[in-house]
Amino acid sequence: MSNSKNSKLRIIPLGGLEQIGMNITAFEYEDSIIVVDCGLAFPTDDMLGVDLVIPDVSYLVENEEKVKGLFITHGHEDHIGAIPYVLKEINIPIYATKLTMGIIEHKLQEHNLSSQVRRKVVKYGQSINLGPFRVEFVKTNHSIVDAAAFAIYTPAGVVFHTGDFKVDYTPVFGDAIDLQRIGEIGKKGVLAVMCDSTNAERPGFTQSERTVGRQFDSIFSENHNTRIIIATFASNVDRVQQIINSAHKYGRKVVVEGRSMVNIITTASELGYLDVPDNTLISIDELRNYPDEQTVLITTGSQGESMAALSRMANGMHKKISIKPNDTIIFSSHPIPGNEKAVANVMNELYRKGANVIFQDVHVSGHACAEEIKLIYTLLQPKYCIPVHGEFKHLKAQEAIVKSLGYDSKDIFILSSGDVLELDENSAKVNGHVHTGAIMVDGLGVGDVGNIVLRDRQHLAEDGIIIVVMTLQAGTGLVLAGPDIVSRGFVYVRGAEDLMDSAKAVLNDTMEDLMSEGVSDWGRIKSEVKSALSDFVWKETQRRPMIMPILMEV
Amino acid sequence: MSNSKNSKLRIIPLGGLEQIGMNITAFEYEDSIIVVDCGLAFPTDDMLGVDLVIPDVSYLVENEEKVKGLFITHGHEDHIGAIPYVLKEINIPIYATKLTMGIIEHKLQEHNLSSQVRRKVVKYGQSINLGPFRVEFVKTNHSIVDAAAFAIYTPAGVVFHTGDFKVDYTPVFGDAIDLQRIGEIGKKGVLAVMCDSTNAERPGFTQSERTVGRQFDSIFSENHNTRIIIATFASNVDRVQQIINSAHKYGRKVVVEGRSMVNIITTASELGYLDVPDNTLISIDELRNYPDEQTVLITTGSQGESMAALSRMANGMHKKISIKPNDTIIFSSHPIPGNEKAVANVMNELYRKGANVIFQDVHVSGHACAEEIKLIYTLLQPKYCIPVHGEFKHLKAQEAIVKSLGYDSKDIFILSSGDVLELDENSAKVNGHVHTGAIMVDGLGVGDVGNIVLRDRQHLAEDGIIIVVMTLQAGTGLVLAGPDIVSRGFVYVRGAEDLMDSAKAVLNDTMEDLMSEGVSDWGRIKSEVKSALSDFVWKETQRRPMIMPILMEV
Repeated sequence: MSNSKNSKLRIIPLGGLEQIGMNITAFEYEDSIIVVDCGLAFPTDDMLGVDLVIPDVSYLVENEEKVKGLFITHGHEDHIGAIPYVLKEINIPIYATKLTMGIIEHKLQEHNLSSQVRRKVVKYGQSINLGPFRVEFVKTNHSIVDAAAFAIYTPAGVVFHTGDFKVDYTPVFGDAIDLQRIGEIGKKGVLAVMCDSTNAERPGFTQSERTVGRQFDSIFSENHNTRIIIATFASNVDRVQQIINSAHKYGRKVVVEGRSMVNIITTASELGYLDVPDNTLISIDELRNYPDEQTVLITTGSQGESMAALSRMANGMHKKISIKPNDTIIFSSHPIPGNEKAVANVMNELYRKGANVIFQDVHVSGHACAEEIKLIYTLLQPKYCIPVHGEFKHLKAQEAIVKSLGYDSKDIFILSSGDVLELDENSAKVNGHVHTGAIMVDGLGVGDVGNIVLRDRQHLAEDGIIIVVMTLQAGTGLVLAGPDIVSRGFVYVRGAEDLMDSAKAVLNDTMEDLMSEGVSDWGRIKSEVKSALSDFVWKETQRRPMIMPILMEV
Repeated sequence: MSNSKNSKLRIIPLGGLEQIGMNITAFEYEDSIIVVDCGLAFPTDDMLGVDLVIPDVSYLVENEEKVKGLFITHGHEDHIGAIPYVLKEINIPIYATKLTMGIIEHKLQEHNLSSQVRRKVVKYGQSINLGPFRVEFVKTNHSIVDAAAFAIYTPAGVVFHTGDFKVDYTPVFGDAIDLQRIGEIGKKGVLAVMCDSTNAERPGFTQSERTVGRQFDSIFSENHNTRIIIATFASNVDRVQQIINSAHKYGRKVVVEGRSMVNIITTASELGYLDVPDNTLISIDELRNYPDEQTVLITTGSQGESMAALSRMANGMHKKISIKPNDTIIFSSHPIPGNEKAVANVMNELYRKGANVIFQDVHVSGHACAEEIKLIYTLLQPKYCIPVHGEFKHLKAQEAIVKSLGYDSKDIFILSSGDVLELDENSAKVNGHVHTGAIMVDGLGVGDVGNIVLRDRQHLAEDGIIIVVMTLQAGTGLVLAGPDIVSRGFVYVRGAEDLMDSAKAVLNDTMEDLMSEGVSDWGRIKSEVKSALSDFVWKETQRRPMIMPILMEV
């Protein structure tokens, strides 16, 4: 195209609610689009009954012929979880590092998509060319191994996307983040940096993952005469490796418990990311063959998730493990915002069963703190700064950090979902907006739960429902049966007979009035019944249950 | 009584769920009972639609003739909130310090109980004699002024109950905690200490309330050209005093917003606990007469409560205040466990509106940390230790602290609700259990929402409800109308017509089968309809809505 020199790059975040995860970003140049990440979000408290939330990618579907490929930074759910759903709508090839791809493959198999999806494992330093784009995979560190940043080369300039990252000079597996290459890329000139903001509110540096290993050693040494149970994130393979190392050092057998933990450890072992000494892993059924002080359990449930293995142990609902007095239980994790209370509840239950609970100094974050963010911006020295990943307040905190490095507000862009940022060497501005949204998944239903359904669930959850049924005579409109009242979630009926009898009397009066007025319009009857009963119930109880009149005709 | 020398004191916690507040403890000696505190709890996440939770005091009601009085340590809801409900069941005199009583009076007025309840304001150092009990009020510090500890003198020995407390050597209002008197009481010999555990997991000392005042000064000085909005706990009168002090110093007018904030400030001012310089307070409507940089708003909502003033401002739902870019907004509070996410959401909204949000180092706790707990135990040197107030893990943390002071496990008692601890100089042991419980209040209903109603609400919240109605012919059992299907909270019906049509077909088949078998038993019909529809819906959607068949007969 003749005007290609004048074309701008368009960066479009497509994750409906940046607040709650769902990382997915489109990069568009002329008639080509590539996508970075494809994550899901977990439902917020007001999304009652919803299992997960995925992005509305109608913008990609409408531009299907332009979309060349999907690049994945790492294997966490908020970056890969929507892949099966999105690929059912638009089949595009996936590019990722080895472990990341291993985790994605497991997911595709679960959705029976494995055979239909093209995918390519990419090594650090390798580049993928797609149309006007070249995407270079750059080694980073994170709380899951094989995380990558992307240097995205376009005719409009280079965009560096960090993915989720931290700077770990002494990682457990593999190399430190490739700061040399990042410096080199920066030296050649970078148009924009999109940088992880999750920990931008925290000053200083995130500690190395290896510090947790030393902590495990000291806990194992101090608690040499008890069983040890450690809850951590399933996907933190390095953490699991360090537990296995300490277990081996102190002569303990290791049991892995919890479905997601078993899945990820299997994948990581098969792909060579986990080094398990022979005769270290045993099955949960073999536990009984070893004295407590020679065993370690690694388990899911570090976020207090009610169905996870540790919660079931704490509540006495686990089929194979009971918590014993003197068990040493380690939470190798911090509660994700919103999970604090659930985690505390599990801890309380463990204490009640006599266990010793350790939760301080046995976790490090996987995200860069303020000084690491400064390091990345200083190595890359981009023209424009685009804080990404995190709640709005985290993006604002990164904005404050880059301002402290001398950047001007006009060169910093905090994008909302659907914003189209057009940029090149000369200018950058938000120019337009595309449709995005959050699609709720409940059971097998994708998108069939919307705001009306949620509002009804909220209403039902607050005060329950009262159903009024009546059978009317066709033609005359005479009441042949009812009105009958049934309620659920409103009041415990035994003991509330008087209330229910009075409610019925109110309905009888209402119907008598309507009949004597000769009202036969069902809409009118329903609305009168509803309002009479609603007023009565509010006066008596100050509650507002959902009231549902149902009429039948014979 | 001849055997009074041999009688033991009985300490019985009556708060149904120690985990969630609701402080209330009975002290029983022979035929006399006194009660310390009478708090409510806020509902946990699984108590859908419940407004608040109060203790089941049937033990007190059954022993009404024994109960001599109710002693209140301080005016927080988890210590006074159940008073109106409990006093409707058992009318006993209340003893409290002046401000605490002022807050209680306000509560009694709201419940029209003011004229019926005997009450006596008590000064620090003063004692109340009731039967075999003498209760001495001892000055402490807490995040509300006028907090008291109780030295409870009984023939079996002295029990010292700290209430909620901290050690503040430089309080904003009044004196420091009366450590001299506590030492003196200890020197004479103490049987047991019941000590606040809320902050027992935290090492060191809690900072003085006065440090927050210095912080306000520095924030006011730095942000001299913007409006300042400060959210804090309504009951923290000292905090409000310090905001007023800084406002006065920097020439700003103060607006108080939020109902509970206005209530408490009115009470505190009337009783002389708040010193407001003339012409400092203005009404919210007068705000417009002053430039932004000459105003401060003190508001509720520091916990992200959705209906509180700050949340309404953040969401643009407040009638009189809109957040402007450059507003300086201070959260002078820490999120109470469980509120973290709600607080973060409000902060995000404020940032989105361009405000500058400050939330670090502008709050101190009202509870004693580890070193303060050691100080109290060391001054009192009791024979027995009874950690109170806080979640189970906090009680365990206090246990660890007193063990570090040399106490033996057998002399430390972590009581559950209803446990009867019998003690005297010679021995202490849990000997028996009385009935306790948590009563849920929803609107005007006290106790009419129980586990069945909650389970139904939970079920409705998860997957909604499907109602099946049919009219049958009396005698023959022939289906005259229906089956009709109505759903709420299950699926957005537009777009799900096929699903609903198929569901109806399933029901028609089921009814045909039943009719042809000659089944006329309504129980059988309902259960067959339920199971057929439930199976169908699960297969199609993997959801389990509540299914409610309703039959009528004409």
